[in-house]
Amino acid sequence: MPVIVQKFGGTSVGSIDKIKAVAQKVIERKKMGYDIVVVVSAMGKTTDMLISMAREITANPSKRELDMLISTGEQVSIALLSMAFQGLGYDSISLTGFQAGIKTEGLHTKNLITDIDIRNVRKHLKEGRIVVVAGFQGINEKGDITTLGRGGSDTTAVALSAKLKCTCEIYTDVEGVYSVDPRMYPGAKKLDTIGYEEMMEMASLGAGVMETRAVEIGCKYNIPIYVAISHGNAKGTLIKEYDETMEGKAITGLTVSDNVLMVTINNVEYTSKNIALVFDKMAKHNVNIDMISQTAPYAGHVNISFTASIDDEYMIDAVAKELKAELVGIEICKDSSISKLSVVGIGMMKQSGVAAKVFNIFSDYGIDFKQVTTSEISISYTISAENKQKAVTVLAKELEL
Amino acid sequence: MPVIVQKFGGTSVGSIDKIKAVAQKVIERKKMGYDIVVVVSAMGKTTDMLISMAREITANPSKRELDMLISTGEQVSIALLSMAFQGLGYDSISLTGFQAGIKTEGLHTKNLITDIDIRNVRKHLKEGRIVVVAGFQGINEKGDITTLGRGGSDTTAVALSAKLKCTCEIYTDVEGVYSVDPRMYPGAKKLDTIGYEEMMEMASLGAGVMETRAVEIGCKYNIPIYVAISHGNAKGTLIKEYDETMEGKAITGLTVSDNVLMVTINNVEYTSKNIALVFDKMAKHNVNIDMISQTAPYAGHVNISFTASIDDEYMIDAVAKELKAELVGIEICKDSSISKLSVVGIGMMKQSGVAAKVFNIFSDYGIDFKQVTTSEISISYTISAENKQKAVTVLAKELEL
Repeated sequence: MPVIVQKFGGTSVGSIDKIKAVAQKVIERKKMGYDIVVVVSAMGKTTDMLISMAREITANPSKRELDMLISTGEQVSIALLSMAFQGLGYDSISLTGFQAGIKTEGLHTKNLITDIDIRNVRKHLKEGRIVVVAGFQGINEKGDITTLGRGGSDTTAVALSAKLKCTCEIYTDVEGVYSVDPRMYPGAKKLDTIGYEEMMEMASLGAGVMETRAVEIGCKYNIPIYVAISHGNAKGTLIKEYDETMEGKAITGLTVSDNVLMVTINNVEYTSKNIALVFDKMAKHNVNIDMISQTAPYAGHVNISFTASIDDEYMIDAVAKELKAELVGIEICKDSSISKLSVVGIGMMKQSGVAAKVFNIFSDYGIDFKQVTTSEISISYTISAENKQKAVTVLAKELEL
Repeated sequence: MPVIVQKFGGTSVGSIDKIKAVAQKVIERKKMGYDIVVVVSAMGKTTDMLISMAREITANPSKRELDMLISTGEQVSIALLSMAFQGLGYDSISLTGFQAGIKTEGLHTKNLITDIDIRNVRKHLKEGRIVVVAGFQGINEKGDITTLGRGGSDTTAVALSAKLKCTCEIYTDVEGVYSVDPRMYPGAKKLDTIGYEEMMEMASLGAGVMETRAVEIGCKYNIPIYVAISHGNAKGTLIKEYDETMEGKAITGLTVSDNVLMVTINNVEYTSKNIALVFDKMAKHNVNIDMISQTAPYAGHVNISFTASIDDEYMIDAVAKELKAELVGIEICKDSSISKLSVVGIGMMKQSGVAAKVFNIFSDYGIDFKQVTTSEISISYTISAENKQKAVTVLAKELEL
């Protein structure tokens, strides 16, 4: 029988009734003649609740123990969902990350899947069971329980699909992938299909539907990923290999990210050693740097700005302290009232002038941007947060998204 | 350094503040120069809450999935307690049942520990860590997560002590082992020491302080078990090998069990095959039979009565249905307004007349009993529940407990 992997996120299994509804939905597909692996996240706000318990215990809990703690959230979901299948008369088994053979390495709370020993999953599928796998978690070489970080359940699902060579369906609380976030631009269009590269770019630039890593794995192993709403039947979006039929416009989507901290370091003595020092230290503290800009040297000094995730602010403060001790005379300021806007489209590779068009729109509507960076298929701008809604509306309208 | 195992039950870790208090208490001992393994249960009512979620999903959830579900309770506790140690500046690691090498077999939700691969625990102790182990759980040969049933965390703690050849301390919400439950007889005496056999008898007869299996393991490996209150410094009770200095009275304690269902099967045709059939079927459905009594045959028929745990009522009903189909003319009645009283004392082996004394007390105070059974060191009576308090009071007083 053909196999399919279906993933349901935290809101989709946020209550006993929702778990039962998910079970019904999966069984409809099972009846069509599929062997099914279901990947689930922790119920609703469970993970946040567990993290806040940890913070009540100690300000800076060990990440190894955090993984131990938060991995219980998915374990609860898989057990309950498996019981729901059994209650409806279907054979089912739940597997934690380690039981499903999901091997990881890296930093606790941010692990990467290195391999999946798929034998246990295959065995249970062969014996006719619906296999329910805990998303977001695995086990490392030391035998510690690990978690995969934000969006980790998507990664689990797509990685399992890659091993099983089958389609992956991601059920979530939105109806699919939109050209622009419909909460910000009600006229936004839902996309029927989108290529892996565009989706990766959109995901990494802040479109919350799926995490970049999951799409990357889909791209690498050419696994079609179908994103649709959990509780409902609306047609979703298929993420697949780009082909010519999908081409139309230069710009497929517009993403917005608010989770941005802009850091400016003024008056750095201009030597390559000093510049390297700044980014070396950030890397050593696992701060992911996004957009970088630098002024032209003046009197032997430069100003450096970069953006990072606001989640890393704590680490950035630690680095700032070290830098001030080593680079005499520098000034460091942070600005979190920043939004990042990106326009994405694989058509940009062939059609020129997108950047110019966007610059013109910004200029026409009096929107200042602080930084701009480009990739092959995207252009990103940081703007003041207060201009965000205006910028989204005019760009979506002018670019017909 | 000498090793010690300390176990803290669910109420002892029932809140964030209590977890912090437990951490402090453990560290006091650590400072005295001990290597410490801490075993913890799930926080407060977590297990009950998880079970009721399962029942909301389906009336009769699979026990394999129940184990998957409820084992998360201890995993949360160990992570939080380990963080508490780290927050106080002590190196610590939490280990789930499988990570601590706890191997089990048997029925899900009622597994038995078959062995402990102690290497991982030893390694972390050697590296100077406080090792926090999840009570109540292990892993079976198939790699499934299992739980040990009621009192399972005590069993985990004593079994770890047996492997590590060290003392076990059980911290709980009572001050130690009493001759009679102080809630029923306020004048009850706390025992300084008690022998394994007496404690096992008392535990199996309903004294809620510790589970029989845990004491059995202590007895088998001669592990001293100290039972005391978690949050406080009152002296507790030491359970150890019986020695002559501990002997005094014939009777050490009086236990009461309310969790009793008395089943009577009337009018069974008197053949050994029929009697065997009754108890065979109960065994096949995993009903634990306790006290059995049978009337003398009359007109080729007998009446059989037995007691069992009220928890098994569901299974007993299933068996009753089968029996009625096979044994024509029988009548089955159940009575749950029953209490079981037992007097326990290793001195009974040497002093005779205990039974007579108790019979006389019952007779003097007009208390009827329904069944009586004896073991080497105990005598048990089933009485009507309405006479329970009266019987406890007069026995405790007359026997000077």
